[in-house]
Amino acid sequence: MSIQFSREEIDQMPQRYRATFINSLGGFKSVVLIGTKDKNGQENLSIVSSLFHIGANPPLCGLIFRPDSVDRHTLDNLLETGWYSINHIHPGIIKKAHQTSARYPKEVSEFDEVGLTPEYPEGFDVPMVKESAVKWVMKFREKHDLEINGTHMVLGEIIQVVVPTDCIKEDGFVDIVSTETTTCSGLDSYHTVKPGTRLTYAKPDTWPEEIKS
Amino acid sequence: MSIQFSREEIDQMPQRYRATFINSLGGFKSVVLIGTKDKNGQENLSIVSSLFHIGANPPLCGLIFRPDSVDRHTLDNLLETGWYSINHIHPGIIKKAHQTSARYPKEVSEFDEVGLTPEYPEGFDVPMVKESAVKWVMKFREKHDLEINGTHMVLGEIIQVVVPTDCIKEDGFVDIVSTETTTCSGLDSYHTVKPGTRLTYAKPDTWPEEIKS
Repeated sequence: MSIQFSREEIDQMPQRYRATFINSLGGFKSVVLIGTKDKNGQENLSIVSSLFHIGANPPLCGLIFRPDSVDRHTLDNLLETGWYSINHIHPGIIKKAHQTSARYPKEVSEFDEVGLTPEYPEGFDVPMVKESAVKWVMKFREKHDLEINGTHMVLGEIIQVVVPTDCIKEDGFVDIVSTETTTCSGLDSYHTVKPGTRLTYAKPDTWPEEIKS
Repeated sequence: MSIQFSREEIDQMPQRYRATFINSLGGFKSVVLIGTKDKNGQENLSIVSSLFHIGANPPLCGLIFRPDSVDRHTLDNLLETGWYSINHIHPGIIKKAHQTSARYPKEVSEFDEVGLTPEYPEGFDVPMVKESAVKWVMKFREKHDLEINGTHMVLGEIIQVVVPTDCIKEDGFVDIVSTETTTCSGLDSYHTVKPGTRLTYAKPDTWPEEIKS
């Protein structure tokens, strides 16, 4: 049995109910920790579930920041310095990662508050999360203010990547099931993922086959 | 053991290797089928793994379209009519969903070619996927051309939603584990997800607790 919701019914939902409903509609999301530092050296760490792929050549990804969220320190810092890090989450750090979304004052480091360890890759003055298995350094490229609802889209370039050696397959595929990379549903539901099915490149007139690894 | 890749090393990867590597870095992605129709009534269906949440009030989401991809028919159609549908994928239709990425000519309906059923919600002239459990009608709002790499970002409003009645929780959370909603890693790896951990709203000075449902 299915139920339909018209736009009028969605608009009449209580605010928190609607936020929870709409956020969980959109499928499983890429949830990551963003590490930054301001020009005075104050570190910041925040959880974001809006990472999306833009392109591989050059390697680019995007993030959405809400207008008035705790993420604002992250946005200010990455605009100020031009640098940020993106760090995968796994079950061992889910609670700590979620806790970075609490509204700490700017002079507090979420690394210290939640108990995660800042780690500086050689040659870069941007903190990564030591406890993350898959992580990379980003250089800020563009900010687009989306007038439709006041959110900010940030685009950046992938500059340096760290991944566990044994999770890279022959064709470049990074096996993020083996790193227990966590996905997110809605605002607060964290999940690991079952082993997947890889399918061959699709062509008209044939069916895709499973890629055995 | 971890391995580092500098930007120079990424740029020197063979093109397909790099595309596979960078696409799988970004974590588990929301993968959906986009249903459209052109002004002559020709239906189109395509798989996209770039859905992202923009806001809940108004309910908005975004998609990224590559410059020269098979998705182009989808982009043309939704710009032409102003309407599209977004449909979740589950294991029973993974191969069919993946097959919509083959480069079929425009006069061919991917619904027919892959064996999925177009379904028209009352009052809307846009095809949904009958086999999808969670789906909604979108109205096009904005296209942003991202000069950084020639991709197009499309923003739209959620107008009408269909979800299975028993997967909506008391607080509006939609349980998309129970619908076996599939997530995607990289370009071609499809996964279902394990039951998750929901955490309470984070506040400084307390730790989040598990929400029992």
